[in-house]
This record gives sequence, structure tokens and C-alpha cells, in this order.
Amino acid sequence: MSDDDLTHTDDAGDVQMVNVGDKPDSARRAVARGTIYLAESTVDAVRGNEVAKGDVLATARVAAVQAVKHTWETIPMCHQIPITNVDTEFAVRDDRIELEVAVGTTGKTGCEMEALEGVTTGLNTVWDMVKAAEKDATGGYPDTRIADVEVVTKDKTVLE
Amino acid sequence: MSDDDLTHTDDAGDVQMVNVGDKPDSARRAVARGTIYLAESTVDAVRGNEVAKGDVLATARVAAVQAVKHTWETIPMCHQIPITNVDTEFAVRDDRIELEVAVGTTGKTGCEMEALEGVTTGLNTVWDMVKAAEKDATGGYPDTRIADVEVVTKDKTVLE
Amino acid sequence: MSDDDLTHTDDAGDVQMVNVGDKPDSARRAVARGTIYLAESTVDAVRGNEVAKGDVLATARVAAVQAVKHTWETIPMCHQIPITNVDTEFAVRDDRIELEVAVGTTGKTGCEMEALEGVTTGLNTVWDMVKAAEKDATGGYPDTRIADVEVVTKDKTVLE
Amino acid sequence: MSDDDLTHTDDAGDVQMVNVGDKPDSARRAVARGTIYLAESTVDAVRGNEVAKGDVLATARVAAVQAVKHTWETIPMCHQIPITNVDTEFAVRDDRIELEVAVGTTGKTGCEMEALEGVTTGLNTVWDMVKAAEKDATGGYPDTRIADVEVVTKDKTVLE
Amino acid sequence: MSDDDLTHTDDAGDVQMVNVGDKPDSARRAVARGTIYLAESTVDAVRGNEVAKGDVLATARVAAVQAVKHTWETIPMCHQIPITNVDTEFAVRDDRIELEVAVGTTGKTGCEMEALEGVTTGLNTVWDMVKAAEKDATGGYPDTRIADVEVVTKDKTVLE
Amino acid sequence: MSDDDLTHTDDAGDVQMVNVGDKPDSARRAVARGTIYLAESTVDAVRGNEVAKGDVLATARVAAVQAVKHTWETIPMCHQIPITNVDTEFAVRDDRIELEVAVGTTGKTGCEMEALEGVTTGLNTVWDMVKAAEKDATGGYPDTRIADVEVVTKDKTVLE
Repeated sequence: MSDDDLTHTDDAGDVQMVNVGDKPDSARRAVARGTIYLAESTVDAVRGNEVAKGDVLATARVAAVQAVKHTWETIPMCHQIPITNVDTEFAVRDDRIELEVAVGTTGKTGCEMEALEGVTTGLNTVWDMVKAAEKDATGGYPDTRIADVEVVTKDKTVLE
Repeated sequence: MSDDDLTHTDDAGDVQMVNVGDKPDSARRAVARGTIYLAESTVDAVRGNEVAKGDVLATARVAAVQAVKHTWETIPMCHQIPITNVDTEFAVRDDRIELEVAVGTTGKTGCEMEALEGVTTGLNTVWDMVKAAEKDATGGYPDTRIADVEVVTKDKTVLE
Repeated sequence: MSDDDLTHTDDAGDVQMVNVGDKPDSARRAVARGTIYLAESTVDAVRGNEVAKGDVLATARVAAVQAVKHTWETIPMCHQIPITNVDTEFAVRDDRIELEVAVGTTGKTGCEMEALEGVTTGLNTVWDMVKAAEKDATGGYPDTRIADVEVVTKDKTVLE
Repeated sequence: MSDDDLTHTDDAGDVQMVNVGDKPDSARRAVARGTIYLAESTVDAVRGNEVAKGDVLATARVAAVQAVKHTWETIPMCHQIPITNVDTEFAVRDDRIELEVAVGTTGKTGCEMEALEGVTTGLNTVWDMVKAAEKDATGGYPDTRIADVEVVTKDKTVLE
Repeated sequence: MSDDDLTHTDDAGDVQMVNVGDKPDSARRAVARGTIYLAESTVDAVRGNEVAKGDVLATARVAAVQAVKHTWETIPMCHQIPITNVDTEFAVRDDRIELEVAVGTTGKTGCEMEALEGVTTGLNTVWDMVKAAEKDATGGYPDTRIADVEVVTKDKTVLE
Repeated sequence: MSDDDLTHTDDAGDVQMVNVGDKPDSARRAVARGTIYLAESTVDAVRGNEVAKGDVLATARVAAVQAVKHTWETIPMCHQIPITNVDTEFAVRDDRIELEVAVGTTGKTGCEMEALEGVTTGLNTVWDMVKAAEKDATGGYPDTRIADVEVVTKDKTVLE
């Protein structure tokens, strides 16, 4: 394709899925975590599995695992990598629920985006399951909030 | 189905997709927002569209719109509702980027989960696009963090 | 498009997604059910929530609900219809687990395929969760079997 | 959100999913068509259903119908609309196969993108099915080409 | 994450996607089959390709292949594995249609769930294609039934 | 499965996903291209980023990359292969926009279908973004057309 009348958009701004073809396969692991702040009465209902819509944490675990596997289509420039394991751990505190998601892969890129997608989707699913408990009279969520979403650890071992 | 030897799991814990068949169609709108904290040099690169992987905000906008439309499959107990519009607005600050997503629907349920999914996916996409700039020498992200994810407003008008 | 040299394939064999544009919106409900036969020791482990891979029935419930919502893409000639509710009920017997899935819609077609997809996917998920317990020494499944998959009831009320 | 330090990207360039919430529901129909040029021997094999990979036109019909239904996720700013029917018609000529896809909807937007997606996906599927017959010694496709992809007709009737 | 105030849900019940990162790549093959029972007149119509909705078996074959490839998202705790081939075989008997699906992979897990998903989705697609022929006056399906869904064989050869 | 009463459909017509299990992993690259013909005033608006719906080329790039990654589900008999990179290049001419998509993989099959899917989806997305500018008074598209869709190059290096 000759370039004589190419658009002047600077090439630096053109989005691309970067080439990882020459990267070695590696055993990689990434852990991300985040927190959803809730009313204490809501946390109690989750802890007692008394939420009318169903088992909050079991549903959020499944959603988190699925989100990890779907990251390559959710985040546009992510590569699809073979996910070898997903581990989800919830800590139910007085006024919040923390979610930690660990992801393993044997592919050519890191898997921190997969772990982050697991965390944010898992926390959004908690929100969805407890909507009725968290809403105020006008349908708003004065106290509900997701925060502290971060990558905790990353490891890599090149496979021979 | 007779119940004589049903599992003893309390029915309260069984997840279900609640019945909205009798709810009227309504014009609804929800706005959510959130923030990703970044190094100031990274924010400068985003502002100047100098990120090697491509146009960060344009890519994140598309990802946010797609995430809004996919909420019914990402959040397990969400209903699929007709999305009539999605509006994404970024505010690029010195040390962070804020994203606000407004969603409209004419369906039988609210659309705050759709707005939240747009926000978290849009912010995760920003993270993915600036990974090279944010990583430290060990591949970690000491300063990157998503926070302040919340529902800003919700409106509803029952359609006749 | 003139037909002079059309392929001779009989038009009767050409697959099509039939026109439902003139059908009225209706409140419809369909219930399907099916059974997976398992070793009694496996059923005991499910009942006691002692399966190492996790909560079998909670995971299968989520899978069934998701399968109901995805029927329009799984079954090629199905229309996408608004699903208003999904209800899943398990009966854990001595040597088998029965799953009944009820689906509601306000669309232009019936929802029995959605209910059937919920049943077969829910039962396949049970199978996946208990694989380690059901396998024999050669990795085969001599006793595991899905059967009795059928539509139980269908109702329709035309909406004004 | 105050605008004092907003990015300077002109708002005109920000992609959005436009608001169709106030548009009336309409019965709409769109027809698109396109052509794939093939070696005459390949066309003969398709006509005689002698392609080793299987029934070319039956497979392409299913792919076209599925592509129509998935347009809302394939084309980023498309709304999801209720598809009421899809009709696919092939004309097998001496050196080419033409595909015409008709789509109906009762939604708030036109469905020409859906018809176009059906056409290009159906033709790409034909290409995939006849790859072995069309390839030259170096694996290239000197004669294969998709062309003449266009919208033939569009109709709209506002529903009361 | 400290564990002092963790939820008391027994860890045994927490669903997880098990770690297969240390498993060797293997050439694996699994075959599953199942049966749909139909009215004899319906089977005759399928055999003669006289079903108004289109070619029943061709459509079901495509649906089965697609279902095999989508198993990792349909069955929540399944890993995504590279599918190297799918083979579908129908046997049309007097009062039923049997479907056998063979799947190959070179991944780290078995592929029997993929074969089972191919079978149940293929049979559900047959049901969908012949709905008009099978329904009684009230819209019910007194004679239609899916049964005998089982894994026939599994093979594994570790790749060097 | 005995064959005595198998359907008489010739096996040649049965669609299958061919076995690539014995093929070696290779580094492969394929480039495809195509053109959308537009009114000159529309091309000017794209070049100046003055299209009301947003940044046409940035949106089309993201859509093309996503389409490449989704080819295994869009084209029914395609295998899912690991995509290592996607590169999209637009040439904006006076009366048309050309799109070239390069795809890399390390899998067992070629990736020309992935490149073609990237091209047709990218061009359809351009069409969607400029609909308002291209439509005539009756809603038709007298001058819009996609053509010249072809495979430009293919390369393969067997990996040791």
C-alpha cells in the first residue's frame, strides 16, 4: 500500500495489538485484589447467606472466573492466553468485602489484566446481588463503593 | 417434582434471576464513575497521545461501550435490557484519569450495573494500554490503582 | 436477483430464521427438566458440599441461568427474546440429580428451547464438577448418564 | 465533573453510542448483497456438494444468520435490536457466488448493518470452506475476491 | 490477606478452576453420544430434508461444532483447550436420531465435556428445527425426549 | 454406531472441523485488504475527524482487532489459534478508504480467515460510523460499497 496520500494521523496514535510471537512461553502468576464497601447490615446478610437473590459469594466467584477467561475480548488489545488456574478468595469484614483473585498462565504475556478483570467483575457481581439491600429510598447507593483495586504480585518462570 | 428427598440447602441461598415480567417499561438512566491513579508522566503521555500501544482514551471508550452492552452476560443474574445510549466522558487530571459513563434504557430494570461495568472495564482498559509506562523494574505496579467507583445518579420515567 | 442459474438445491432445505415480526408480544412460560445419573457416593458428596472442585449445585445454577440467556446464539435459528425470569430447582435423589428450569419471557416466540438449554447445560455442569468422583481407573464414566430431558409445561397469555 | 483540566481532544472525536430512546418502534427491513469470485472448478464443486470440508452453502447460511444476530457486538456503536427474521439467498453463477441477506426488525434503528454483516460473514465462510480448492502452490489466493457488497433496499413502517 | 474475620463458609465449598499448569500437553480424544426421540413422521421429514425450517442435520452439525468450541465459557470451571478436530455423526433410526461427537485436543485436560456439550447442543438444535412437527395441539411435546447422553471413549497420549 | 439405517446423505456433504492435531506449530503471518467506496465529502469528514458519531478510524481499528480474535466463532469451521499480533493500516484516498490487516499466529493453521474477518469488520464499522453522511433522502446508500477484499500475502516458518 503506497503511503503518498495516507491520512496524517500520527502513527503513534494508532492502536495495535503488539507482537508477542517471539516471546518464550512462561509460567506466570498474577494476583489482584479490590474492595467493595457496603452497609454493615448488608455484610451481615451476605455472611449469613440471607440475601434473597441467592448466594452472593458463590455467584461472584463464578463471575470472577468467567471474567478472567473472557479478558481477551473485554480488554481490546489483550492477547488470548491459556489460563491454567483461577483462585478466588473473599474476606468478609465489618463494612466491606475484599476479593483477591490469583491467575496462572503458561502463555507469552502476563496475566495481571485477567486478575484485575476477575476482581472488578466479582465485586460488580457482589453489588448486583445486594442491590435491594444497599439502595436508599430514591434508588441511589449513598454508601456503596468499589476501591483499592490493585495488582498485588506477579511472578514469571521461563519454560524450557 | 416431589420434595421428600430434596437437598437441605436452604432455599434462601439458591441463586435466581428475579421475575421482572410484570414491571412496566420505563425510560431509565444511570450514571457511574470511577478513577484510575497513574504516574504523572503516564498521564502526560495519555494527554499527548504518545503511548506506543495506541490511543488510550479512544480504545477505552469503545471497551466501555461494549462492556455496557455485555453486562447481561458478565454479571450472572442481570437481565438483558435494550440499551438506548451510552455516553463516556474522561477527565484527565494531573495524577489520575476519571471516567464517567451514562447509560439509557427503555427496559424493565435499572441500568446502574451497566454503567458500573462500563466504568470498570474502561478503567481496566486504560491500565492495559499504559502497562509499559506504569510497571516498575520487577513488573509490578506500585502506584497504579482503581478507586472511587460509584453510582452518581439514577432516573426513571414510566412509559405509557 | 434473477434465478436462471441458481443452485438446484431444493429451497425446502435452505435453513432460515422464520419471521415472527407479526406475532403479538405475549407473556410466556416454559418449564423443562432432566436427570443426571451418578454413583450414590457422588450424590452424597454433592449433598454434603464435599466436592473438592466447589459447590456443585450453586455453580450449575449459574451455568443454567447463563445458558438460558445465551440460547439465541447456541441454537442457530432461535430468536433473541427478552427473558424476564429464570428459576432453577434441583432434587437430589439417591442415585441421581434432577434439574427443573422455568423460564419466562414477554417476547414473540416460546421459550422452551431456553428452558431445555438451561437443563442440559446445568446437568453438564454437574458432570464437570464431579468428574473426579465419577471416573473409573481408565478415565471413563461407566455409570454417568443424562436422560429424561423433556418439556414439562408451556403457557402463553397474549399481552394487550 | 468540572472541565478545567479536561483533555484537549475535541469532543467531536469522542466516539459515542447515539441516543435512540425517543425513536418510535418501527417495522424495518433491509436487504444487502455481495459476491465472492472463485475458480469455475470450485463453483462446480460447491454446486455438486463435493467439497471435502462439507456443505458450503448450508454452513454459510448458518454463519450469516448468526452474524446478523451478533452485529451489536461486532460493530462497536451498533444498538442491539430485536431481529424478527433473516432470509439468505445464494445465486451460484459460473465464476462466482452471490449472497443476498434480508433482515427484519421491530426496533428503534435500521438493520442495514445487520444485513451487511450477514453478507460479509456468509461470503467469508464460503471462502473458508473452499480454501483447499482455491489455494495456489504457494498457499495464496490469486483469483479469490469479495466485491460488490452493498445495501439493496431499506423499508420502514412506524408501529402504532 | 489476614484471615481473622474471614467468612465461615467452609473452604471445601468454594468453587475454583483447578490448576493444570504442571500437566503435560497430551493428544487426547473423547467421544460422546446421545439420542433424541421423535415421532416417526418427524424422522421421515428429517430424512427427506422436508422440514420447512431448513436442513435439520446440517444446522445441528454446525451448532454441535460451535458448542464444542464454546465449552470453556458454557461450563464455568472448564479450561479453554485447543480443539484440533470435531467430527459429528448422525444415525437416523425409525423413532429417534442418534448423535455421536468426537473431539480431539492437544491441551492439558481431557475433552469429554466438549464432546458432551456438542451432543446436547446438537440434539437441542434438532429439537428446535422440528418444533412445528412435534408440537401437539396445546403446544406441548408429549413424545419428544433427549436421553442416553454418555461418554463412549476417551484416549490420551502424552506428547514429548 | 452401526450404519445399517444411517441417513443416505452422502458423507461428502457432512460439514466437519478438519483434524490439525498432527500439524506442527508454525510462525505464520497473513495480510488481507479491502476497500470501502464513499462520497468525497464523507472521506473529508473522516480525515478531519469531524464525524458526529466519533473517531471513525480508531473505532474501526478496535473492531478489526476484535474481529480477528473472534474468527473461530464467526466462521463455523475455523480452529481457534493463538493470535500473536494484529496490525491495521488505513489509507484514506479521495473517494475511498483502504484497510490492510496483518495477523500473526504460532498455531497449526493459517490465519488468512482472521485477516479477512478483520478487513470486512473494519470496513463495515467505517460504514456504520458514516451512515448519516452517506444516506440519501430515502435512507439508501447509492454510492457506498465494499470491494476488492483479498488476501495479499501469506508466510509460514515451521517452529522447531
